[in-house]
Amino acid sequence: MGATLADIAAHAAVSEATVSRVLNDKPGVAPTKRRAVLTALDVLGYERPSRLRSRTARPVGVLLPELVNPIFPAFAQALAPNFARRGFTPLIGTQSEGGLHEDEIIDMFVEAGVSGILFVAGQHADTAESTDRYQALRELGLPLGFVNGYREDVDAPFFSIDDVASMSIAVRHLVAMGHRRIGFASGPESWVPTRRATEGFRSAMQEALGPIAVAPVVHGLLSDDGGASAARELIAEGCTAVVCASDLMAVGVLAEARRQGLSVPAQLSVVGFDDSILARSCWPPLTTIRQPVPTMGIAIADAFVGEMNGILAYRTEYIFQPELVVRESTGPAPSES
Amino acid sequence: MGATLADIAAHAAVSEATVSRVLNDKPGVAPTKRRAVLTALDVLGYERPSRLRSRTARPVGVLLPELVNPIFPAFAQALAPNFARRGFTPLIGTQSEGGLHEDEIIDMFVEAGVSGILFVAGQHADTAESTDRYQALRELGLPLGFVNGYREDVDAPFFSIDDVASMSIAVRHLVAMGHRRIGFASGPESWVPTRRATEGFRSAMQEALGPIAVAPVVHGLLSDDGGASAARELIAEGCTAVVCASDLMAVGVLAEARRQGLSVPAQLSVVGFDDSILARSCWPPLTTIRQPVPTMGIAIADAFVGEMNGILAYRTEYIFQPELVVRESTGPAPSES
Repeated sequence: MGATLADIAAHAAVSEATVSRVLNDKPGVAPTKRRAVLTALDVLGYERPSRLRSRTARPVGVLLPELVNPIFPAFAQALAPNFARRGFTPLIGTQSEGGLHEDEIIDMFVEAGVSGILFVAGQHADTAESTDRYQALRELGLPLGFVNGYREDVDAPFFSIDDVASMSIAVRHLVAMGHRRIGFASGPESWVPTRRATEGFRSAMQEALGPIAVAPVVHGLLSDDGGASAARELIAEGCTAVVCASDLMAVGVLAEARRQGLSVPAQLSVVGFDDSILARSCWPPLTTIRQPVPTMGIAIADAFVGEMNGILAYRTEYIFQPELVVRESTGPAPSES
Repeated sequence: MGATLADIAAHAAVSEATVSRVLNDKPGVAPTKRRAVLTALDVLGYERPSRLRSRTARPVGVLLPELVNPIFPAFAQALAPNFARRGFTPLIGTQSEGGLHEDEIIDMFVEAGVSGILFVAGQHADTAESTDRYQALRELGLPLGFVNGYREDVDAPFFSIDDVASMSIAVRHLVAMGHRRIGFASGPESWVPTRRATEGFRSAMQEALGPIAVAPVVHGLLSDDGGASAARELIAEGCTAVVCASDLMAVGVLAEARRQGLSVPAQLSVVGFDDSILARSCWPPLTTIRQPVPTMGIAIADAFVGEMNGILAYRTEYIFQPELVVRESTGPAPSES
């Protein structure tokens, strides 16, 4: 393939010897040159030799909002084997205090040559943020996917837990045990999942208790401190049970209950959200609303890998059903005496 | 810069108009073409326009062994702001069951054009693994850094917690409270940190208790199940205290104690390792050996960013001192009756 070799070498601006070394998977080629050769192959429409194709998985950008709440790493961990089976692998980027904004991480993903970007609870979930950045990426032809936080005007598949059903199973569990004053320690008000959960919580309370329902909601940070501070308000308002927007918040509620000398669940019942590793390791272990992360991982990888291979996924929101996992942080309401 | 433009265009295999659009940061350029132009600039030795330099942080590959143990995401989170201040940002890759091997992730990092790779508790920490892969990367000129797990024959800076000092402070704390039979729930036998900690544990026990010291060690998986299974052995051998190689293992020890009806710390004291978010959220909260992750994040970013900018870090192992954080999982030894 003399002519072809020269062709590739010219496009990649390397010697024919280098092209040959790359094609035969020999060592001693600088990574930038190796990359240039592979890009030239792609651009010129040649199939990469199977040796080279199988050797390197194609990277998919996975943007996580942070890494402190273990549910976000858990999503990435659940995606990895499902991507790997299909020849992809997640490259994880994250925002951080004093670190980079989502836009800068997107730029970095694009520069790194990712085949698509999956946003987990990113800026898209915030109704106060414009969706322009995602539309611009779609115009570049980059496949996108979004987990938790639906926006109508983005050309991509969305994958969400059913926030309304989540609140309904939590409220019914608590009401069945005699709780009447139940509070919701919710997340930021402009967040799509928070909004849906807040609405779901209020209507579940109405449905279970009728017009007498008192359904206080505190919006706060999705952190343990956020949970503790919501708990202070809700306990002061006489709540006997608190439903939380994350397990991390629930850990904060448990800490606040301990500070106030309230025993869980005898004096206060607590329901988490996520079923992350925190729910099993805290004490008492949390009754929590489980996001079916392994199932979501399979479904997301399926739809999203199709998208990256040119098979468009439905432009819809795939909704996943939560389960209530009952452990030891919930119990009968304290008798009013 | 007519000739130059043509030069860059030829190298990047794009039109001069495209080069011009990229240099002027105009939209509508496909990411692969934009990347090709920037690479051509680098290869030809031109400085990128400052606009383009500041816009995109340079990616640094950060390889984590897994994402379930929250200490690994915590390292990445601590590194992010320290990298960001210096114009870099972490791109995180991780191994996973049924996912990719470290070598494949390295290839992906190289393809993605990372400026360097930082390995956190990777294969380098396993004495059963050859260091050839790291030497090959160094031959390509890629800066490397390694966290926890020293190997003499790799041309790169290493950053480690002092495993021997860690065991010494844990053992002294327990012996001071009357414990005599203390067990160590350790990690895999071929791991550098595990080997050092095991030696450190045995000599700390000898030093504290003299020739009467009984210092049983169980090697196992660095998971909660690994901790539970080590606890079964160590409790059966009559230990009144268990030191663990990670907080995640300690959570498993707490679970096993609960299953056996042993109260912590009245009947069994437990010491964790890491001070990850698990240590604060489990119950009782863990007495644990803290890895100074924020301090390590600053020092690692400093040395490693220097390395990426051509200022070689000392070829040495930077050792960080642990602290013992005393919480509620340790107490006086039960009286022998």
